[in-house]
Amino acid sequence: MENIDPDKAYLLLESGPIVLVTTRHGEHANIMTMGFHMVMQHTPPLIGCIIGPWDYSYKALKETGECVIAIPTVDLARKVVEIGNCTGAETDKFAKFKLTPKKASKVGAPLIAECLANIECRVADTSLVGKYNLFILEAVAISIDRVRKERRLLHHNGDGTFTIDGRKLDLRDLMIQWKQFQVPL
Amino acid sequence: MENIDPDKAYLLLESGPIVLVTTRHGEHANIMTMGFHMVMQHTPPLIGCIIGPWDYSYKALKETGECVIAIPTVDLARKVVEIGNCTGAETDKFAKFKLTPKKASKVGAPLIAECLANIECRVADTSLVGKYNLFILEAVAISIDRVRKERRLLHHNGDGTFTIDGRKLDLRDLMIQWKQFQVPL
Repeated sequence: MENIDPDKAYLLLESGPIVLVTTRHGEHANIMTMGFHMVMQHTPPLIGCIIGPWDYSYKALKETGECVIAIPTVDLARKVVEIGNCTGAETDKFAKFKLTPKKASKVGAPLIAECLANIECRVADTSLVGKYNLFILEAVAISIDRVRKERRLLHHNGDGTFTIDGRKLDLRDLMIQWKQFQVPL
Repeated sequence: MENIDPDKAYLLLESGPIVLVTTRHGEHANIMTMGFHMVMQHTPPLIGCIIGPWDYSYKALKETGECVIAIPTVDLARKVVEIGNCTGAETDKFAKFKLTPKKASKVGAPLIAECLANIECRVADTSLVGKYNLFILEAVAISIDRVRKERRLLHHNGDGTFTIDGRKLDLRDLMIQWKQFQVPL
């Protein structure tokens, strides 16, 4: 895993992948699957996401103010769904799904070693948590696996079907606005 | 174009496509390209999105409280980028990009006839517009083109490259949570 600038979170998230979110509450680390998230601004790098009281991670996130957004690739598809099927109240999901927790650099929540990238986040704004379960997170560190071969992300279509990344279309030359964001991941 | 239930907005947006947003301010209709958006809840169907004062559409959206989120497919990729390159202050983008405005059913902003689907939206909450340019929209109507063949969405990687929808992975049988959202689009 190589550390990269947390300002690069948009390069991992703007395309809308399904993600995993880890939290740690006391000794207990948990993982949930999350589809409702967005990039909110580039600098500082803010991410909006919906995590509600129906999620076991909600309490941990509220109380610790920290989480990790881990980016799975297509080889982890079945685990992504199965992680969403069960609750951390009853299950040690790292053990059950044979995923490896790794110490993060800036937050208490663990990284997931098997994921393409891990974005360490701190809660920056809770003003709409009461009304919409909207947490606004700031990315504070990112690590990325430079050697894994499988890099295709999964996009949840909202109904249990997923779209797998297809081919890339490079329109950087055509895009004359926002040139400052055309940086390598 | 066939009308479908606005509660189905998540089936169009959760996978994170790049979208076009139309507004109408007086006689002037405009189009912008938008990458920062998320599904916030299923019912009522709320969508969060970032539209800032640097976007010509910002003023129209603030003053009218209405917009349309249009979903382009890969055949429109170059137009999606070029729409983002120029401003509605100087350009009639419907004319310039040969896109056809169509009357919406519930809002003043126009549909884009060439897109796969159009989600008519009303602004539901502006409490974080001042701080983050976050508009919370409610989908009030959706129309979808049932006959067009090209249905692959584009996902902006944040840097001028796009990922085109690849193959689908159907894990509906595996997903035992949220069964109520496994409905046809």
